[in-house]
Amino acid sequence: MNLNFKLFFRSLGALMMVMGGVMIFPLIVSILYNELETAITFIVTIVSTLLIGLVIYFGITPTRTRLTARDGFLIVSVGWILASVVGAIPFIASGAIPNFFDAFFETSSGLTTTGATILKEIESLPKGILFWRSFTNWIGGMGILVFAVAFLPSLGIGANLIAASEAPGPTLDKITPKISDTAKRLYQIYLILTFLEVICLLLAGTNLYDALTHTFGSVGTGGFSNYNDSVAHFNSPLIDGIITTFMLLSAINFNLYFYAFKNKGGIKNLFADSEFKFYLWIVAMAILFITLNLFVTGIYKGIGESLRFSSFQVASILTTTGFMSADYDVWPTFSKMVLLILFCVGGCSSSTGGGIKVIRILVMLKLIGRGIAVRLHPNVIISVKINEKKLSIDTVSSIANFIFLYIATVLVGTILICLEGIDIVTSFSAVLTCIGNVGPGFNLVGPVNNFGFFSSPVKFLLSLFMLAGRLELFTFLMLFTRKFWLYDK
Amino acid sequence: MNLNFKLFFRSLGALMMVMGGVMIFPLIVSILYNELETAITFIVTIVSTLLIGLVIYFGITPTRTRLTARDGFLIVSVGWILASVVGAIPFIASGAIPNFFDAFFETSSGLTTTGATILKEIESLPKGILFWRSFTNWIGGMGILVFAVAFLPSLGIGANLIAASEAPGPTLDKITPKISDTAKRLYQIYLILTFLEVICLLLAGTNLYDALTHTFGSVGTGGFSNYNDSVAHFNSPLIDGIITTFMLLSAINFNLYFYAFKNKGGIKNLFADSEFKFYLWIVAMAILFITLNLFVTGIYKGIGESLRFSSFQVASILTTTGFMSADYDVWPTFSKMVLLILFCVGGCSSSTGGGIKVIRILVMLKLIGRGIAVRLHPNVIISVKINEKKLSIDTVSSIANFIFLYIATVLVGTILICLEGIDIVTSFSAVLTCIGNVGPGFNLVGPVNNFGFFSSPVKFLLSLFMLAGRLELFTFLMLFTRKFWLYDK
Repeated sequence: MNLNFKLFFRSLGALMMVMGGVMIFPLIVSILYNELETAITFIVTIVSTLLIGLVIYFGITPTRTRLTARDGFLIVSVGWILASVVGAIPFIASGAIPNFFDAFFETSSGLTTTGATILKEIESLPKGILFWRSFTNWIGGMGILVFAVAFLPSLGIGANLIAASEAPGPTLDKITPKISDTAKRLYQIYLILTFLEVICLLLAGTNLYDALTHTFGSVGTGGFSNYNDSVAHFNSPLIDGIITTFMLLSAINFNLYFYAFKNKGGIKNLFADSEFKFYLWIVAMAILFITLNLFVTGIYKGIGESLRFSSFQVASILTTTGFMSADYDVWPTFSKMVLLILFCVGGCSSSTGGGIKVIRILVMLKLIGRGIAVRLHPNVIISVKINEKKLSIDTVSSIANFIFLYIATVLVGTILICLEGIDIVTSFSAVLTCIGNVGPGFNLVGPVNNFGFFSSPVKFLLSLFMLAGRLELFTFLMLFTRKFWLYDK
Repeated sequence: MNLNFKLFFRSLGALMMVMGGVMIFPLIVSILYNELETAITFIVTIVSTLLIGLVIYFGITPTRTRLTARDGFLIVSVGWILASVVGAIPFIASGAIPNFFDAFFETSSGLTTTGATILKEIESLPKGILFWRSFTNWIGGMGILVFAVAFLPSLGIGANLIAASEAPGPTLDKITPKISDTAKRLYQIYLILTFLEVICLLLAGTNLYDALTHTFGSVGTGGFSNYNDSVAHFNSPLIDGIITTFMLLSAINFNLYFYAFKNKGGIKNLFADSEFKFYLWIVAMAILFITLNLFVTGIYKGIGESLRFSSFQVASILTTTGFMSADYDVWPTFSKMVLLILFCVGGCSSSTGGGIKVIRILVMLKLIGRGIAVRLHPNVIISVKINEKKLSIDTVSSIANFIFLYIATVLVGTILICLEGIDIVTSFSAVLTCIGNVGPGFNLVGPVNNFGFFSSPVKFLLSLFMLAGRLELFTFLMLFTRKFWLYDK
């Protein structure tokens, strides 16, 4: 079947309206802080984006409402690129980030909840602009198109496909009767987490502005801060602890919260979930080993401080947030290597976290275990089980596919970035952190540095990697294959 | 079924006889070069090893000749450890490498055809000792136990299992009616390649001793040289070219040579093989890109010299030999990154090369392609094909398993080595080069450095990684699982 271009453009129109609509919040902030120029920038952007969106949305009448998987991939991929372009307008127009490639990098970094920045000096920018920057983390966390689907159900039947192409992590069982209901449910939990963190941060003594921006950064697992030295700015164990907690909470499968509230047994339900248990195990082990390593090598004063910084950084990197409370680039090699592995793991499925996702790592390890069992008992059929249920061969093979594609993309990406002539650790960690939507990396892109020094082509490439990573690779990279465009031939 | 310990010990006895037997060659070299002390060392080692081997072999009468897969794993894994211990005796006894862990590292590096060394000063050692060192590359290339199986068929029915556990690469089709015939066939081709390279090197002007040692290093894809600066010592484009050629020839599936000679169509048969074609493609692409990179950055004088050094290094690393003709650690990042990827790829299946093996990489890439096709055509059954034949799900899953285990082992290994507190690139490349049986790595274990500075525990761990890599991970790592030992419970 040919691509449904009419519905494609209509969806993009809807997306532009959403993007224009959400800019009302940074506009309000600009007005509250008396930032006249910034406010005008936002008003012009909002009006023009809404107008163009409305014209496209109502100007195009789709002749058929059916979408194929291929339409879904195209809408979601182009949709995210478009959202990053539209979102970049306030940065460029206000003069905060005059260069297009820089602004596109910053916006896609925000929307994909990566949190990598090209900005060296953050604090001097207008409050309204910085609010928008942090707000992109929050919008991107749950997915821009899922948002559109949830609140503009008139988009039609294709919503399932769009949500499937945008959803973080593999779907192991199909328990979503109506996609817009699921989207609303996820947004409910998202709003509750957001509300709770803002309250906690206010109680810990931050002002409302800082509470909001850092909440957007944590629950969206984005990691944009309005301070040059990120969360280290507050220098408060309490605030570190609150943010650590909410980062960890936001990388849990949101459906689990729903079950925990709705089903009997409450939070016991959580512990019936293999992915959740493995996630806790990774967090505990990583914190334990890094704390011991930091303590033994005497980087921090005592075991308490070692625990504080290690747990913050483990949470920040595993959940792919990318906040920092300490310069982990000066930590001993062992701790850095543990963090480097966490860079790949990422959050749980159906959370705001990026990366490969805990469930896929778990399946990968179970496959290795199966490999040993099969070699010992060559004549016995052994299957991989998650939550006491056998996984189908299709699911396992799809997960293996994904991990292979992830590795291949990271390696090809690193080779390309290496053409800049920068060292391997910088190049590799830059690609890894962008595809995994983490934020900072090591060496030249380490926690106290930024991505500003890269050439424009590399910045553009890294922006594409962030988008590819956020859209679980296949959805996005699909568009660069011959198979996608020669579908009918 | 319980482990067949009697046949286990009998096999180890046979192995000791083989190890004692092959030391006659370095003994002859010692005598020819008038190295009296070294000759005595070899005589004592040979006599005692042969005696112990004979006593065990003939002293133990197996009550049953049947072996299970489990027996095969145990015999092969312990067999290789034992061979490394026995092979280390001349190094220790002669005082060339007085420390046990150093000698064990050097011998397992030789037998696994890794070629990583702890020696800083090589040239001053006795000729007999250096001949033994290079000869371990040659013995290990085709497999010590396959050798035992081929020439001591009285070992019995278990030979198939032993050969399967030791064979490099996955077996896609079962065309081996009698394993000892296959082993003899592989050794024939191995001897022909060896003979040809010795002749070529002699014609190029080396002496017989150098021709032999460097031939052992190339056809075994081991990479031990008797010169401190490896093949760079000769400073001859002709010798570089000969060694490049034979390294590349030795990493091709040996069965293909057999078909090419026996079947109609000659070498056309080679080009019907997917793995061979992909191998050529990798070689060509890697040489092309690195040559251009070296030429453009002006590291070498012209395109000719860039081509000479890039092709040698690509061949050396892809085939997991580890010879060097230039210090690639000072090459630009792009070239180093390409080499780093070749570190993982390795040779073809059923060759002397290590690594993941070309066929597995090919299947992995085909799986990614399948993933895209499946997402575009959700209702069509799509399978992975190699050589026009569909691969079974078991084969694909076993290959995916292997790659996952490979990655997991490299990461866990790197974390452990990082406890030494050395930089990540050194730690990572040391583990990668040992598991892949390549030889040198980057930074502190780069081409002009050596592994001598590591602590004894790390040297021992790296030795185990070399053995694990040579035995395709599962065979060796199996022994460290609970499942293996609690098989009957």
